[in-house]
Amino acid sequence: MTHPPYGGVATFARAPLVEPSGAWRADVGVLGVPFDLALGFRPGARFAPRAIREASLRYAPTGEGFYDLTTDSFRLAGATFADAGDVVMPTLRDDLVRERTTDAARQVRARCRVPVFLGGDHSVSFPLLRAFDDVEELHVVQLDAHLDFTHERGDSTFSNSSPFRRAAESMPNLSHISTLGLRGLRFDPEAVRAAKARGHALVTMTSVRERFEDVLASLPTGKLVYVSVDVDAFDPAVLPGTSSPEPDGFTYDVAMKVLRHVARSNRVVGLDVVELAPNLDPSGRSELLAARLVVETLCEVLA
Amino acid sequence: MTHPPYGGVATFARAPLVEPSGAWRADVGVLGVPFDLALGFRPGARFAPRAIREASLRYAPTGEGFYDLTTDSFRLAGATFADAGDVVMPTLRDDLVRERTTDAARQVRARCRVPVFLGGDHSVSFPLLRAFDDVEELHVVQLDAHLDFTHERGDSTFSNSSPFRRAAESMPNLSHISTLGLRGLRFDPEAVRAAKARGHALVTMTSVRERFEDVLASLPTGKLVYVSVDVDAFDPAVLPGTSSPEPDGFTYDVAMKVLRHVARSNRVVGLDVVELAPNLDPSGRSELLAARLVVETLCEVLA
Amino acid sequence: MTHPPYGGVATFARAPLVEPSGAWRADVGVLGVPFDLALGFRPGARFAPRAIREASLRYAPTGEGFYDLTTDSFRLAGATFADAGDVVMPTLRDDLVRERTTDAARQVRARCRVPVFLGGDHSVSFPLLRAFDDVEELHVVQLDAHLDFTHERGDSTFSNSSPFRRAAESMPNLSHISTLGLRGLRFDPEAVRAAKARGHALVTMTSVRERFEDVLASLPTGKLVYVSVDVDAFDPAVLPGTSSPEPDGFTYDVAMKVLRHVARSNRVVGLDVVELAPNLDPSGRSELLAARLVVETLCEVLA
Amino acid sequence: MTHPPYGGVATFARAPLVEPSGAWRADVGVLGVPFDLALGFRPGARFAPRAIREASLRYAPTGEGFYDLTTDSFRLAGATFADAGDVVMPTLRDDLVRERTTDAARQVRARCRVPVFLGGDHSVSFPLLRAFDDVEELHVVQLDAHLDFTHERGDSTFSNSSPFRRAAESMPNLSHISTLGLRGLRFDPEAVRAAKARGHALVTMTSVRERFEDVLASLPTGKLVYVSVDVDAFDPAVLPGTSSPEPDGFTYDVAMKVLRHVARSNRVVGLDVVELAPNLDPSGRSELLAARLVVETLCEVLA
Amino acid sequence: MTHPPYGGVATFARAPLVEPSGAWRADVGVLGVPFDLALGFRPGARFAPRAIREASLRYAPTGEGFYDLTTDSFRLAGATFADAGDVVMPTLRDDLVRERTTDAARQVRARCRVPVFLGGDHSVSFPLLRAFDDVEELHVVQLDAHLDFTHERGDSTFSNSSPFRRAAESMPNLSHISTLGLRGLRFDPEAVRAAKARGHALVTMTSVRERFEDVLASLPTGKLVYVSVDVDAFDPAVLPGTSSPEPDGFTYDVAMKVLRHVARSNRVVGLDVVELAPNLDPSGRSELLAARLVVETLCEVLA
Amino acid sequence: MTHPPYGGVATFARAPLVEPSGAWRADVGVLGVPFDLALGFRPGARFAPRAIREASLRYAPTGEGFYDLTTDSFRLAGATFADAGDVVMPTLRDDLVRERTTDAARQVRARCRVPVFLGGDHSVSFPLLRAFDDVEELHVVQLDAHLDFTHERGDSTFSNSSPFRRAAESMPNLSHISTLGLRGLRFDPEAVRAAKARGHALVTMTSVRERFEDVLASLPTGKLVYVSVDVDAFDPAVLPGTSSPEPDGFTYDVAMKVLRHVARSNRVVGLDVVELAPNLDPSGRSELLAARLVVETLCEVLA
Repeated sequence: MTHPPYGGVATFARAPLVEPSGAWRADVGVLGVPFDLALGFRPGARFAPRAIREASLRYAPTGEGFYDLTTDSFRLAGATFADAGDVVMPTLRDDLVRERTTDAARQVRARCRVPVFLGGDHSVSFPLLRAFDDVEELHVVQLDAHLDFTHERGDSTFSNSSPFRRAAESMPNLSHISTLGLRGLRFDPEAVRAAKARGHALVTMTSVRERFEDVLASLPTGKLVYVSVDVDAFDPAVLPGTSSPEPDGFTYDVAMKVLRHVARSNRVVGLDVVELAPNLDPSGRSELLAARLVVETLCEVLA
Repeated sequence: MTHPPYGGVATFARAPLVEPSGAWRADVGVLGVPFDLALGFRPGARFAPRAIREASLRYAPTGEGFYDLTTDSFRLAGATFADAGDVVMPTLRDDLVRERTTDAARQVRARCRVPVFLGGDHSVSFPLLRAFDDVEELHVVQLDAHLDFTHERGDSTFSNSSPFRRAAESMPNLSHISTLGLRGLRFDPEAVRAAKARGHALVTMTSVRERFEDVLASLPTGKLVYVSVDVDAFDPAVLPGTSSPEPDGFTYDVAMKVLRHVARSNRVVGLDVVELAPNLDPSGRSELLAARLVVETLCEVLA
Repeated sequence: MTHPPYGGVATFARAPLVEPSGAWRADVGVLGVPFDLALGFRPGARFAPRAIREASLRYAPTGEGFYDLTTDSFRLAGATFADAGDVVMPTLRDDLVRERTTDAARQVRARCRVPVFLGGDHSVSFPLLRAFDDVEELHVVQLDAHLDFTHERGDSTFSNSSPFRRAAESMPNLSHISTLGLRGLRFDPEAVRAAKARGHALVTMTSVRERFEDVLASLPTGKLVYVSVDVDAFDPAVLPGTSSPEPDGFTYDVAMKVLRHVARSNRVVGLDVVELAPNLDPSGRSELLAARLVVETLCEVLA
Repeated sequence: MTHPPYGGVATFARAPLVEPSGAWRADVGVLGVPFDLALGFRPGARFAPRAIREASLRYAPTGEGFYDLTTDSFRLAGATFADAGDVVMPTLRDDLVRERTTDAARQVRARCRVPVFLGGDHSVSFPLLRAFDDVEELHVVQLDAHLDFTHERGDSTFSNSSPFRRAAESMPNLSHISTLGLRGLRFDPEAVRAAKARGHALVTMTSVRERFEDVLASLPTGKLVYVSVDVDAFDPAVLPGTSSPEPDGFTYDVAMKVLRHVARSNRVVGLDVVELAPNLDPSGRSELLAARLVVETLCEVLA
Repeated sequence: MTHPPYGGVATFARAPLVEPSGAWRADVGVLGVPFDLALGFRPGARFAPRAIREASLRYAPTGEGFYDLTTDSFRLAGATFADAGDVVMPTLRDDLVRERTTDAARQVRARCRVPVFLGGDHSVSFPLLRAFDDVEELHVVQLDAHLDFTHERGDSTFSNSSPFRRAAESMPNLSHISTLGLRGLRFDPEAVRAAKARGHALVTMTSVRERFEDVLASLPTGKLVYVSVDVDAFDPAVLPGTSSPEPDGFTYDVAMKVLRHVARSNRVVGLDVVELAPNLDPSGRSELLAARLVVETLCEVLA
Repeated sequence: MTHPPYGGVATFARAPLVEPSGAWRADVGVLGVPFDLALGFRPGARFAPRAIREASLRYAPTGEGFYDLTTDSFRLAGATFADAGDVVMPTLRDDLVRERTTDAARQVRARCRVPVFLGGDHSVSFPLLRAFDDVEELHVVQLDAHLDFTHERGDSTFSNSSPFRRAAESMPNLSHISTLGLRGLRFDPEAVRAAKARGHALVTMTSVRERFEDVLASLPTGKLVYVSVDVDAFDPAVLPGTSSPEPDGFTYDVAMKVLRHVARSNRVVGLDVVELAPNLDPSGRSELLAARLVVETLCEVLA
């Protein structure tokens, strides 16, 4: 007797609800960061953790896992999940947001094999990454239309354009970042140069489209990888619910090919999905895609 | 450190999440019934339990209760809540829906002082009421634009037009029903006559508007009362999110005056709120009102 | 075996579909005029005839009529309806719109006791009224936030601000107009003076609210009356789906009291409902109200 | 003088409105089945028949047919249409729905060359197919993200996951089913095995994308074919208005290539389009696509 | 030749666009503060200044003013307007927001008789009020469902619950605040006591409804008054587009009666309208009401 | 200190606001034509000029231009813009619309290198093109799903199906039109033949997809070109906000490749973007794409 997706209290994939600091262990621990004050355009990412949880109910795994038609096998069989709820948001105090987010992320990370973080605008990736400051030679694979390596925007150094700059500055263990899906009319020249100076891989969407095998081949192998998916990496036709859409982005299929490749050639130590604004998509397909992306990526990471 | 309303997993008023049959006790136990197959027009009430839970976070009581400006006192202080989740919905099988709903309602009722049920279309009030078949001389106070005492509609005897007819038939202990807010262009003459024959009070919205004190005076006193609020009792301007709106209904203020009066002069044994269709109100005010109505009614019931 | 409101092809109140010039007779003939090029703000009234037809299915009378709870009697029993479809709209050519509308209105009028016209913006009332140019001493009762008696607006004399000015000019039989519900920040002084010079009754919403009995008493008696309901007469809370809403308008109840009074003291020769923009109200209650208003007015007119 | 798409009462492609059992003959007979109680997620398919009718007015053929730019020829010239309205929906009684649907479908089929059925959720394809139980060696070509061959879901054997299982069980003449567009995270292993055991063709979307010519070549030839289009076969970017969208589906172009191929190599005996939820797509493009798909498929079927 | 409301670049009431610090003088100077990071629920007030500007085009005064039907006179004749644009918003840095807002407000105030401020959430009233720190014995009349006199919320002292507390602390010249429209389930007892200790008038909506003449009589007379309108003072039926709606609020008519009374018995030195979230009201009536409120209040203030 | 996109009064790309006939010079002059009475389906293009202006704020160039990641260079550096506002729309009088539009377009054209026109429905391209009647051997490149070369539709010769027919008739200097993106079910055979007789290039979307290099090669070279972008050229998934969407259209990338090619091989003398209906796309991505298309095309035109 299982609920339809519209039934029951929505924890991620029907996982038990736990406290970040509680006495639990699971393969996957989920933490929401409902913060969207750091973006510069259309708000709504604060509603994303709850929306992704609701959408995840279409993809709630059972013990036997997901039967795959093509391979006649089961995925994610036996995997255990826990939902650690959301970081408690203050009003205005972005300093507290970062502090609490890092704290909770550390706690969740300590209790599971793969922590999954549901943003929130992209600024949350900085305090999330900080919880991985002890990982040796940490690699980041970022799917994103934008570089998010800007030093300062709108008089702030903590906007959603800066998370990886801040992380790179404060985390000596952050070795490398690969950003895939770059496109759009405006780039910050200083940020581009700074990222290139650090040896980061800046992969445009044109490259993804035209030289996909080369792009896959250029990704890290055998590393400890944190994956950060800004949903504006996707084509706005595929995922319209985001603050700052840029045309000609990823399809789900191509994004999953990247994520599958990354998961199979490395050890994924964490995953975040950010910049989903469910209020901008009345069709609901944006959060359904985000939820499926999380679950299907876990199929690969835990395979 | 408390969440803003958009933060955290949404249980009713941040109550602990329990199983209907679990080992818990609380002043208030909440159960959702996400079923809307029995209505005859615009679906969406299946989404109501979750929407009301989310909206209830604006009204989550703290231990000290709600400070009331006018009386300089605290309401609902110390009250305990538990959220028993939703009844598990099958596909199509309305017989199973009724069976499971009655079962879960009995379990919740056994564990709390006041069970609160979140519909669902109004057909769920029949299986909910059945869980009170042992209450001696049960009275119902129903806020509703429609009588819902029709024998059969659309070849079914279990539609959302029939819950009280079915309850009256099968529950000898159901002594009396007062229906307030009746209006609209079409009434079922057979249903009206049957209700009148049983001595029910049929109170039109015109009466509520023009003879309010008389209406209050005519309500039951000193009884065990089950309260059923069909949100189409409200004016559609006030609550647009419902399948079958009828103009010229209750304001929140007048509805609360009725509910306060009922709560203070009787013992309320249960409460349901039904026919909310959050998908029909993009402003979100419909579920906010429904959630507040539940919490504020509880202020009176538990006073 | 009757359809639920969402079933079947939507003719008005499930009436047979006829041609305006066909061989039919009915108590009520319905004609749509899906024209909204003459308004100066937000379009959408072109969608109103179809939306009102759909909404009318909630109020489709059966042969026995509508049972009234309060009077224990049946309304509209035995009344026959025909739906003559819509006037065929050209592109841009408002001259053709007026010509075709008057022609079709004459045809429908010749075949029924009470023609009902579904606008369109208010400019259509001029060509509709022209179909009544043979009615001796024609009176108009207009529910409207605006006077619509302006000579010229935006370089046109046929805008939705001018229908009654054009009718008054060209129809010597148009004796008198009562406009109820006037309010808003801006009036055309020339139009006000011209209307007053003709002896029209200009009744503000404040008067309706504060001196309702006097207002009713001032309405025509024993006349042949054409009723024109601009839905912006209603409070935007009650009916948000209109191009140019003005706060503090009619509730449904008060509007029906006016229409009932007019119908009972006069012979209503025609009715139009205009300026409904269903695209501006995702709750759908605007067209439901408009449809009910038509049907309930007919209950009084055919009583 | 023809209506713009927003004018006139909306029958399919402006066809005359008939009764399923009436005295009519046409090349194409259209029947709506506004039923969506059997789906397990987001309702709205009950609104599809009316929405597709409205959208079809953009594609209403004239006598001379549709001029094709590329071939300099006319399509669908002289074809006659009739709209038989909708099956009358009861409340809750899915047994009656199936009975009435099969009856009406038989009546429509008996009066036209190609019956077109507008769902409704996919459960209606079972009672529709039953109306073809006398067709020798019936083949089905199904465009769908899901297999819909599940034995039981949610305690029911008549959900929208089961129509083809029920048909296969009860119709010995149902020889073969080709399902194209399969994708998604979860498949029912028992259903997959049962379908394969019957020799059905299970074609994933990956195959459609990567081996399109092979897929076309594998389709039936020279058969009597019933075509069932579940609109969730389409990419949600292309058609967002559906209950259970799955990313990476058909474009219109590729779907039409499949349908054209099927129509040209076989005799199409019936067509259904199901699972459209117009309420989930405020842009209106979902029903426009569904309507065009029906009309353009008929161009091929009647060529 | 004047634009319809949808034509032309939208400055407030088609006023010339100026810089706050420019060389201009006008009766009315308008300044927007598109800031909504300090609210605790649903964002969107950042979009309000632009939405109110667009809506104001329906109320753009001409030189001759607005003709009033009832008094046969013209209002706002000859009044001059200037639109000083918006305060430039940084990212996250609420300290800068307050600083820049006070600076720009001072500049605008220095150049006009009546500055009008378009919020933003209610937190902006603190930096706006600071621009009036030289006004002797400043009185505030606040229309609001909430008191907004809380010391701290969500770890911040600058939330939209605290603007008047901060102003009272830092502005010795702020003599008195009258808050009208108070209602809702939860009040901050400490804030209530602090406001009462300062002698503020706390007027509930119940008082407004039941003792309106007394309420008017209790308002300041002969003072220099800053008016702050939080649009959640309105009934959500009347104005649904706001973050935190509370049922049973002001109608437009009653609110205007208050504002008219205040304007006629005092000198209004400034006006703000805050907490409008146009994204929450697809009917657009919320911003239309806000715009009209500003213009009609100015009719009284400049009379 | 620059505004975020939601801040400040929205002129195109933050250009100074000028009068068409004023004393200004700029590289780019922008003129809006908020007219949508000539389309035959869903209105809303009247809202497009303002919506595109708002969206353009995401792409407001700074003096140094847009840094391009791939080429490490700056685009549009130093370009100057002016926003000449909108043509003043009358009511109904399409003759005046054409007259005023041509007049204003001539004025804008005289003051800038590249005039950009924001429609409105496609009928406005006729009066816009007339402002170029002195350009020797004018070529048009039109991106469009439809030919728009019909002689008469709906009894009018000035509908949005006829702009290029009218222009071809009245402008002997209009040498050639290339239309790219043609598709859909219905073409006007007379229009197709007339266009072919004039030697126009009619390029279907199928050709664009399958023979892209040939299509590019067939475009004019070394000419004076007016570019007209009907946004229904785009795939409705990519740009849903348009009156008459047709599936399988341009992606942004392919459209830009065409426009880049045209701009680099010719001199672009003017650009219009028409048929955007922002009211049909609640995600807002339609106007964001239209705004970016304008700015990015200018990057090429001014390169």
